[in-house]
Amino acid sequence: MPELRKDPIGGRWVIIATERGVRPKDYTVTRQPLSATNCPFCPGREAATPPEVLAFRPGGGEPNQPGWNVRVIPNKFPALKIEGERDNAGVGLYDMMNGIGAHEVIIETESHDQSLADLSVKGIRDVLWAYRHRMVDLAGDRRFRSAVVFKNHGAAAGASMAHAHSQLIALPIVTRVVKDEMEGARRYYDFKDRCIYCDILDQELQDGDRVVYETEKAVAIAPFASRSPFETWIVPRRHADSFERGPTDAYEDVARTLRVVLRKLRKALDDPAYNFMLHTTPFHQGPQPHYHWHIEIIPMLTNVAGFEWGSGFHINPTPPEKAAEFLRLTEIEF
Amino acid sequence: MPELRKDPIGGRWVIIATERGVRPKDYTVTRQPLSATNCPFCPGREAATPPEVLAFRPGGGEPNQPGWNVRVIPNKFPALKIEGERDNAGVGLYDMMNGIGAHEVIIETESHDQSLADLSVKGIRDVLWAYRHRMVDLAGDRRFRSAVVFKNHGAAAGASMAHAHSQLIALPIVTRVVKDEMEGARRYYDFKDRCIYCDILDQELQDGDRVVYETEKAVAIAPFASRSPFETWIVPRRHADSFERGPTDAYEDVARTLRVVLRKLRKALDDPAYNFMLHTTPFHQGPQPHYHWHIEIIPMLTNVAGFEWGSGFHINPTPPEKAAEFLRLTEIEF
Repeated sequence: MPELRKDPIGGRWVIIATERGVRPKDYTVTRQPLSATNCPFCPGREAATPPEVLAFRPGGGEPNQPGWNVRVIPNKFPALKIEGERDNAGVGLYDMMNGIGAHEVIIETESHDQSLADLSVKGIRDVLWAYRHRMVDLAGDRRFRSAVVFKNHGAAAGASMAHAHSQLIALPIVTRVVKDEMEGARRYYDFKDRCIYCDILDQELQDGDRVVYETEKAVAIAPFASRSPFETWIVPRRHADSFERGPTDAYEDVARTLRVVLRKLRKALDDPAYNFMLHTTPFHQGPQPHYHWHIEIIPMLTNVAGFEWGSGFHINPTPPEKAAEFLRLTEIEF
Repeated sequence: MPELRKDPIGGRWVIIATERGVRPKDYTVTRQPLSATNCPFCPGREAATPPEVLAFRPGGGEPNQPGWNVRVIPNKFPALKIEGERDNAGVGLYDMMNGIGAHEVIIETESHDQSLADLSVKGIRDVLWAYRHRMVDLAGDRRFRSAVVFKNHGAAAGASMAHAHSQLIALPIVTRVVKDEMEGARRYYDFKDRCIYCDILDQELQDGDRVVYETEKAVAIAPFASRSPFETWIVPRRHADSFERGPTDAYEDVARTLRVVLRKLRKALDDPAYNFMLHTTPFHQGPQPHYHWHIEIIPMLTNVAGFEWGSGFHINPTPPEKAAEFLRLTEIEF
């Protein structure tokens, strides 16, 4: 059983998994370049994965059979286990918890050779809808307090499978990053009586320097204090605290904006590895007028993340204004 | 002039440098394997670096000439500039600051082929003393509020020079990580009236499971909530809030412990890339009974740091108890 452990000083939780050993070879993941003929995420090999928990089949059809365009399955090697009760315990001055949680894989397309950036706006919107459905379902499990939805694209960003996919981890805790964001946003709200993300959007749209792309209902910006070159946030214009409990009318424009940003990054930076993460309110909360869901995209352009990762202290060699301008000027086919 | 910018939500500061461009090739650092015949950190090529700010010359001698065993120089490509005044400014709702600061390189040995783990205990102790001297000096500059001392070993950890060195960055701000640690430790102190690091040492020494190595005055442990496999902290036994203002009698044992841990990591994990960082109180503060200086070492064993880096949410596949046991059992020559 994996464990959730809390750092007693900084308060962050980590998952301590147990499936690997301690020798160097255990960390050298052999990335067999799976072709479409042996990829377990491809249609026709549904039996090679755990049974699906959700799939969109535009033409109808049976579960765990081909015919889907988005398919969600439990991760075969989950970081947390779905069975078990919440069980907090103290170990001397430390705090820990049973490693319960859901770890799911969202297969974003039936095609082995397409990446998320290749999908149509409708295809990407369907992926967002799959996130939503799964989060609504998992929020009904009272053991869980939050969900982290993220995507690793490329080996340098941690992807171990080539077939386009993202992941969802539902947790019995709220991660430090979300807690910090919620608290920071609340401090601003207490002071100004306004959502800080709404204010950031207002200021960015007025300045224009850090705007990467905008549509009627969503905006992509290079954040003022970008941690790494070409960090990009996609924010719905209208205030909404929760991705899965709020309105869905911005999904299409968020999908369109995500598509444009990913295609621009790919063209401008030669298909970089990247991570993105959906930032939204934890489960089971009332309205949070201070918080605003959004997506944060971080391309992995340098291999010097080691120090930044350990220290939390970031040196970014590219001003976000330059990155935004470069992306605005990058022409893509749409 | 670089800029310090503050994220208005989470409160973390980043350095936005400007020396690089925006095209992919700008991020592909060509790592010319410098040999001892063209390395600017080697003795005899002192003129290839900015003039030294400190050097230990056991046999005496002139500055910027051979004969040193530790040499500290300003970084030729500094992330921050030493000239200029502190100058805070608001940009709409954002906060920024002139990118002033010191960025120095501590060349740890005259030998091109030795790594820090190869040095004698005395050699490593001298490196610690060099840190101390530079921090005391820089603390006298009232523009600076804190210093980050760190080491990148190996390309995967961000090292761009093979010759053994660490770095020091003095800043006009306190980094988020140090602030969080200080606040977390203070909360514990307010509640318990004890230093949390002292309590952690007590508990770890009693349990023994996560102890990697111990000497009379310093202990190496695998922290309970390790973020990554083989994360190791070196903590002086006796309470001391500040590395550079406190007693120095633990330096020898810290050096010995660092030497043993680095040699064990090298042997057990096949010379992994690693980062370490010195955690200590910011400058210009009175006694901090809640804080305790220490060194955090993080080997870079996986290339999946991308998501963790962006999200602050860590999945560690190796329980620290297993890592500590493996390191305890790893035999090294001393």
